Amino acid sequence: MVGQKAVLRQLHLNRMVTDALRLGIPISHAELDTALSQAAQRFSGQRSSDTSGNWILKMILTRGSGGRGYRPPVSVEPKLIVSASTFPPLPDPDGVVAGFASIPLMVNPHLAGIKSLNRLEQVMASQEFTEDDWELIMKDRSGDLVEGTRTNLMARLGEEWVTPPVGSIAVSGVMRQYAMECLKKAGEQVAERPLPADLASMPEFRGLYLLNSVFGVVPVRILERVNLPVDGTLATIANPLETLE
Amino acid sequence: MVGQKAVLRQLHLNRMVTDALRLGIPISHAELDTALSQAAQRFSGQRSSDTSGNWILKMILTRGSGGRGYRPPVSVEPKLIVSASTFPPLPDPDGVVAGFASIPLMVNPHLAGIKSLNRLEQVMASQEFTEDDWELIMKDRSGDLVEGTRTNLMARLGEEWVTPPVGSIAVSGVMRQYAMECLKKAGEQVAERPLPADLASMPEFRGLYLLNSVFGVVPVRILERVNLPVDGTLATIANPLETLE
Repeated sequence: MVGQKAVLRQLHLNRMVTDALRLGIPISHAELDTALSQAAQRFSGQRSSDTSGNWILKMILTRGSGGRGYRPPVSVEPKLIVSASTFPPLPDPDGVVAGFASIPLMVNPHLAGIKSLNRLEQVMASQEFTEDDWELIMKDRSGDLVEGTRTNLMARLGEEWVTPPVGSIAVSGVMRQYAMECLKKAGEQVAERPLPADLASMPEFRGLYLLNSVFGVVPVRILERVNLPVDGTLATIANPLETLE
Repeated sequence: MVGQKAVLRQLHLNRMVTDALRLGIPISHAELDTALSQAAQRFSGQRSSDTSGNWILKMILTRGSGGRGYRPPVSVEPKLIVSASTFPPLPDPDGVVAGFASIPLMVNPHLAGIKSLNRLEQVMASQEFTEDDWELIMKDRSGDLVEGTRTNLMARLGEEWVTPPVGSIAVSGVMRQYAMECLKKAGEQVAERPLPADLASMPEFRGLYLLNSVFGVVPVRILERVNLPVDGTLATIANPLETLE
């Protein structure tokens, strides 16, 4: 959030409605839109924003309260939990250090892409952060790179931008979607295909970028102690602040 | 719980301590033991127990409160949440109806067996219950049977009892462990190996049983509209009420 304005607002709302539907939680775009506007008004200008007016609004939707067990409550009354936090420190714009997580990421095809709270693998991976790591990248069981604990991936290979296929990733982030749209609009070639773990040793490799709607485009400067090339093309093409209405 | 006594008490306490350790939550057996005794005293005899004195005690351990994100809080202060519920209706002792869930169950080898709340696959499977189903059995991606949404599996094949390997199952239930111990003590052959989905058409197939510490041994009478043989051997050999101290 910047003041009362939400970055990538429409993509966030659409994603929440779509994911809720996949999980069987009935919610409308209009209900969420209203809740977002109310929260933005209520929290903005409070202690949570930094000097630039940046803050984080978190909206958690649940299917509501029920008894023991996994079955849905007889009548579903979803709950929306809204919270505000201060904006975290921005990563170095020249790039960050990333490593590989040792726990594999196993994505159920029925749940691929859904931003849910079913994230024990990411929680376990996050215990492995060293002081230098800004992110840990998780691999699938065949060793391909899937995503960071809190970011999606975009690599530059020759003249092409490559991101792992939407059906293979745990969270289909709105920043990934926005970056793909911006690249296509700018006439760039974008492909969805697996990224091998030895990416950086491929002759056509020209850079790896982490995508997250809080931080935008974050270049990886060092991946598992290997220096990577970094340039500002993607950050210029896909600047989420340009979506502020 | 029966009155103030916990069914499979030691197995439950050991499992919780072991799983918490795997998740990085520090808790001792003695702490949990005391909490269980206090809860048993506090809740027993209240509205939650039925005429036989049966009730459900649920203990949820969290790693404590932290900020946004997946990293562990700087200093971990685990929280234990204790609740009591009335005992659910018992299944038909002659056997229940079970079907197959359509969503596959993908078990991360680093998390196999842990009874955590990271159970979105089971939640999604539970939306598929029909009125007749007492349980839905989940398959892995290669089609083998893994476990029910809230039960482990034990099949009788010839003279052998077979349950899927501990490294392949999402929850390693204490009733599964207890049943294996009881079978071995009774001189029966027990093996851990995958159970194919067409189990019931195998010539040596002699029965399928669901294991859960609330219900004990529950025979499957009908699996995906196919009648199965049922006998009371396993329920007799592995009666969790016999662990009451």
